Amino acid sequence: MMHPNRLDTISETLLMGPGPSLVPPEVYRALSRPTIGHLDPRFIALMDEIKEMLRTVMGTRNEVTLPLSGTGSAGMEAAFVNLVEPGDPVLVLVNGVFGTRMVDVASRLGADVDRLDFEWGTPVVPEAVAGKLAERSYRLVAVVHAETSTGVRNPVEAIGELVKPTGALYLVDAVTSLGGMAVEADAWGADVVYSGSQKCLSCPPGLAPFTVSERAMERIRSRTRKVPNWYLDVGLLVGYWAGGTRAYHHTAPINMLYGLYQALRLILEEGLETVFQRHRQAHALLVEGLEAMGLEMLVEPAWRLPMLNAVKVPAGADEVRVRRRLLEEEAIEIGGGLGPLAGKIWRIGLMGHTARPESVERVSAALKKSL
Amino acid sequence: MMHPNRLDTISETLLMGPGPSLVPPEVYRALSRPTIGHLDPRFIALMDEIKEMLRTVMGTRNEVTLPLSGTGSAGMEAAFVNLVEPGDPVLVLVNGVFGTRMVDVASRLGADVDRLDFEWGTPVVPEAVAGKLAERSYRLVAVVHAETSTGVRNPVEAIGELVKPTGALYLVDAVTSLGGMAVEADAWGADVVYSGSQKCLSCPPGLAPFTVSERAMERIRSRTRKVPNWYLDVGLLVGYWAGGTRAYHHTAPINMLYGLYQALRLILEEGLETVFQRHRQAHALLVEGLEAMGLEMLVEPAWRLPMLNAVKVPAGADEVRVRRRLLEEEAIEIGGGLGPLAGKIWRIGLMGHTARPESVERVSAALKKSL
Repeated sequence: MMHPNRLDTISETLLMGPGPSLVPPEVYRALSRPTIGHLDPRFIALMDEIKEMLRTVMGTRNEVTLPLSGTGSAGMEAAFVNLVEPGDPVLVLVNGVFGTRMVDVASRLGADVDRLDFEWGTPVVPEAVAGKLAERSYRLVAVVHAETSTGVRNPVEAIGELVKPTGALYLVDAVTSLGGMAVEADAWGADVVYSGSQKCLSCPPGLAPFTVSERAMERIRSRTRKVPNWYLDVGLLVGYWAGGTRAYHHTAPINMLYGLYQALRLILEEGLETVFQRHRQAHALLVEGLEAMGLEMLVEPAWRLPMLNAVKVPAGADEVRVRRRLLEEEAIEIGGGLGPLAGKIWRIGLMGHTARPESVERVSAALKKSL
Repeated sequence: MMHPNRLDTISETLLMGPGPSLVPPEVYRALSRPTIGHLDPRFIALMDEIKEMLRTVMGTRNEVTLPLSGTGSAGMEAAFVNLVEPGDPVLVLVNGVFGTRMVDVASRLGADVDRLDFEWGTPVVPEAVAGKLAERSYRLVAVVHAETSTGVRNPVEAIGELVKPTGALYLVDAVTSLGGMAVEADAWGADVVYSGSQKCLSCPPGLAPFTVSERAMERIRSRTRKVPNWYLDVGLLVGYWAGGTRAYHHTAPINMLYGLYQALRLILEEGLETVFQRHRQAHALLVEGLEAMGLEMLVEPAWRLPMLNAVKVPAGADEVRVRRRLLEEEAIEIGGGLGPLAGKIWRIGLMGHTARPESVERVSAALKKSL
């Protein structure tokens, strides 16, 4: 005897946490298109268009631009495992959970990791980075563009300018920013940029857009030993995603890629600038509403992300209870704080399809009721 | 100006290759249920049922039984990266592409790999394994249950009996077998078994069912260094998939997991034995039809897989052209050979939802027409 089908309990929820975000109906429909083979010519043609659309969204002409068959975290793993060998000096700029995670990922791979820490809720300071770069020659410098754990935007362009003359590879995590604000891999001089499908691209989680510069590909090709991760070896992936023969590597997540294809189309049809503006406007509206309620934002205006809004939990409020109430009674998900910010902030996402005035109005009304 | 939407070119195809297989309508519908958060209590409850259903299908009571956020190849990667440390002696039994791949995966991780090769199209011979096990003490012995590249079933139970007294860990790849024939992780003494969602489970590709014995978990916990793969570190994954707190690790592929949940339900509702019998019957019917056409199977009857049928390309037939004709004119996908069998065999899948008399009749008629 089977239990009742739990999928029947899954109803539309206004996703305003740190991701996943709301998925447009067109993307749901795409997910359930008929599965075809991963070497079917129709699928190969779809892959080619996905690569091209990703290049546009990621601001790059890199040949090696493709979605990895894993979540955004697989993107981080792939970036480090391909670019770093044991003993390589790596500098990680840390001002949140995802910078901290980079230190762990790189250390596990045997990199010689230096970390430069900044207070959570504040951005990386380029002057401090310059100082560190003057001290030591790094193989790779890594930073998170949009720190999902704090709502801070880091000055990736300015950091890129500092990294460039040192010859180090430059890694930028764009998991939360991609599709919601400008990501300009080439203009930043970034050698590897990765993201996730479930943030501002508004596709369900499961894919990691990923791009590598030709300079970094050369470094990968001249590694002294094979990439110690067969699944995420970029050299092998390129054999499937590019070139004439399309050699079988692993079976691509076909239906997820239908979803990503559709999600990218929707963004490009709307127009990148229009999409970014929609994020900024929803953000401004949200901040206005929160401040009118007497709530305070964690991050200084200049460094706030439009798609991830960290708001301080007011004295006397039961942080967890408010979130639970929102989810259970209003069908709205918002996020709590992580690490040193646990219990101290809520994280309100305005990502992709979620970034609309209707979402802001609903969450503002629900919060007002709960406080 | 956008290109026409390529998803409109994707129509129902009878998937009779080496996977993906046909997806039942209920699973497509599950895929497009509304996305919710990866820490939503409704999703946690769904995860718990997925784990329990996977235990039933995998023949195990292992606490650590969960779907990895990647394809079957990520399952292979995870198995080796968690269980093997640099310098560990590993024995891989090779009689096809996936055994060969295991050698590569383990070698990249620094294992000291011995391989024992058997002719492609024939099974692993336990006596030869016994000889090898007598020569050296291995940390881990690895074998593929159902070699997708050749259609051979390997005697995993007999091999398990040989491995057990040596104290080595025992790894079984069940990518193609799971859900189509008995997989009995506990009875085989297997310490790690992984699979993929897109074969006999008839869910689209993107998830890797994965189980680890308590004995292997102890070895993982006593590693001298951290698992050099943050994304696939089983210790971290368990923190999200089990226990009380459900610590955030990475964002699970929510909608794919809806699909897997529904696919597992369909299998258990039909009943495992009934499903296996359906596979055997479809296989018998296919072989009968092929032999009536004068075609010859690659593998001896005793070692044939029901779900993957390797048939020799007859003299004079244009292997690639036949496959292309089937796909373009009949909307049927079958597979070609790999490695030494390229150009010499077709691989006809009867996996999961595909394993029905109607599929057999369609592919038999189409082949007859093409030859």
